[in-house]
Amino acid sequence: MALIVKKFGGSSVATPDKMRTVVRRVLQGMQEDDKVVLVVSAMGDTTDELVSLARQVTSKPYGREMDMLLSTGEQISIALMAMAFKEAGHKAVSFTGAQAGIVTSNAFNKGRILEINADRVTEALDEGNIVIVAGFQGMTDDGDITTLGRGGSDTTAVAVAGAVNADACEIYTDVDGIYTSDPRVVPNARKMEEITYVEMLEMAKLGAGVMQPRAVEMGSRFNVPIHVRSTFSEAAGTMIQEDYSMEVKQYLIRGVAEDKNVAKVTILGVPNKPGHAYRIFSGLADRNIDVDMIVQSVRYANEGVTDITFTVSRDDAALVRDVLTAMQGDMNIEDVLIDQNMGKVSVVGAGMAGHPGIAASMFGLMA
Amino acid sequence: MALIVKKFGGSSVATPDKMRTVVRRVLQGMQEDDKVVLVVSAMGDTTDELVSLARQVTSKPYGREMDMLLSTGEQISIALMAMAFKEAGHKAVSFTGAQAGIVTSNAFNKGRILEINADRVTEALDEGNIVIVAGFQGMTDDGDITTLGRGGSDTTAVAVAGAVNADACEIYTDVDGIYTSDPRVVPNARKMEEITYVEMLEMAKLGAGVMQPRAVEMGSRFNVPIHVRSTFSEAAGTMIQEDYSMEVKQYLIRGVAEDKNVAKVTILGVPNKPGHAYRIFSGLADRNIDVDMIVQSVRYANEGVTDITFTVSRDDAALVRDVLTAMQGDMNIEDVLIDQNMGKVSVVGAGMAGHPGIAASMFGLMA
Repeated sequence: MALIVKKFGGSSVATPDKMRTVVRRVLQGMQEDDKVVLVVSAMGDTTDELVSLARQVTSKPYGREMDMLLSTGEQISIALMAMAFKEAGHKAVSFTGAQAGIVTSNAFNKGRILEINADRVTEALDEGNIVIVAGFQGMTDDGDITTLGRGGSDTTAVAVAGAVNADACEIYTDVDGIYTSDPRVVPNARKMEEITYVEMLEMAKLGAGVMQPRAVEMGSRFNVPIHVRSTFSEAAGTMIQEDYSMEVKQYLIRGVAEDKNVAKVTILGVPNKPGHAYRIFSGLADRNIDVDMIVQSVRYANEGVTDITFTVSRDDAALVRDVLTAMQGDMNIEDVLIDQNMGKVSVVGAGMAGHPGIAASMFGLMA
Repeated sequence: MALIVKKFGGSSVATPDKMRTVVRRVLQGMQEDDKVVLVVSAMGDTTDELVSLARQVTSKPYGREMDMLLSTGEQISIALMAMAFKEAGHKAVSFTGAQAGIVTSNAFNKGRILEINADRVTEALDEGNIVIVAGFQGMTDDGDITTLGRGGSDTTAVAVAGAVNADACEIYTDVDGIYTSDPRVVPNARKMEEITYVEMLEMAKLGAGVMQPRAVEMGSRFNVPIHVRSTFSEAAGTMIQEDYSMEVKQYLIRGVAEDKNVAKVTILGVPNKPGHAYRIFSGLADRNIDVDMIVQSVRYANEGVTDITFTVSRDDAALVRDVLTAMQGDMNIEDVLIDQNMGKVSVVGAGMAGHPGIAASMFGLMA
């Protein structure tokens, strides 16, 4: 007997036909006594269509109401998937994020999972159901519906796997595993059989795209093995886990990642006094802006001021400008420069530490 | 200061443009300190589209999952309506049926409202919000989403009005009030300024169509005046209330109603013993089948058996056959005949009692 959480993304459940394919695949792969939780996303373009509806009503990001709207996408999927399993003769029941006991912070549009009260899911599994949980959503302690932001369904799947103590979490996707680099960019990229949470986290944070970093962190925290594999083939994909299960050749460099969605922010002339950087970054944190690399440089000509440069997701650039403009006069900041035309290339690998010259090779290749 | 619950149906909120029209109308009609709860249905054809999606997955009526699916329709409406009010500069917040505290029975697809814990609605009103509640839905004590069946949004509106002790409940619709008969069938039908709950209940039960009988019952129970009026005009419609507020000419006949959605069921040869009719009708009640007129006749030739005839909604005819077929052998029933090709015409009016000859006139007209 195994207890497996399987996550299927929006393209895997885009039509009733595709849903039936998922149902067949899940049922064929089940041994007797296996228990299965399915986490599914909204069908195909549903989320985009809902966003477009909202845009016809307002251009403003009303977080709570947007989450009320967007969460219907997954709710539609889970209801239809449960019907599809029943139609195929298997007991099934669907749960919204709230019904699955997923409690989140009240950061609308980017809720974080605080805890999961999985009693209802566990009971339904014990009654012989395939349990279908809406990805990407949860509910605050106040009873407000939240969504988890980009890639939230991966996070839901891994978190639920942790909460029900699943043997593994399978992430079904349109690629067949994690590659050493983006195969669309680097033709000789290799698929990895295994990768550790820590390495994957570096890869994911750096924009490798396949797995959401929060989901990988969640896997590491609950020690849930995550199997990233193809929706369209039975072949094994890549297993993300605590350590290698077999002798794996220790590559110096584990992977190369790129991120094209970067904006660079430079704040010129910040008074060089304790508390100023704190004030800037807590102002950004209050708006849930994720700051990536930070460089602070003191000017030789004027030791009283410093320049701070950092990177953020390009999507947050406008919000960053709002936050910084609001504090500019008050803090005597000279100027704020935002360059949205940035990218980032990173090489990942624990083995690099003892091998000088990697940075030189990289700059050589880029040149 | 007045506290008003206003219900807008699916055609009134079918597009973002129509939603803006509703927002303008509500805001224009508000006095300072007025409090408004809006109950809205799913946009236009959304419910039909969801049903059609489900039909592509299964032909079976999986109640719980169907309600999970259908309830998204109203959830989309309330989110967009709240955004539209905020865009117009007014505080607003949306609540699903569950969030509005609407507790229902667990009869999926035809849930009945058991109670409303309106604390959250009241708090949000006190904070100056226009509160937008999803019609047609609620949640069971077990946390399952239910829908209330046909016309459920009217029921939601009147029940919420009762729970928050509203001054009135306004039902906005595509007709401008209640008519003495269906104006599409009877050209000289007259609009009534007022009608009592009891009269309206007769009219509604008999298929007058504009108001759901459960909503009228709810209004009578909580003594909430219900104002049925046009979405497209400022003119007063028809007020449904406990008693007439002014001298209204006491018509002998208050209205004529028709119902084309009728099936007649005849059970031949039911053993004429106590408990048999009880068993039949409780079997139907267990499946939530609403039985209308009942006629029981004893055969002169064989006093040991009786024939029972009753009418149900045509939608329930197949279910009735299932229920009766299951008990036929066990109860020695001779045969079950179901005629789906029936209609019903009724005349309503408390004044008829003391005036013989009304039935004769009616049969004369029909002939």
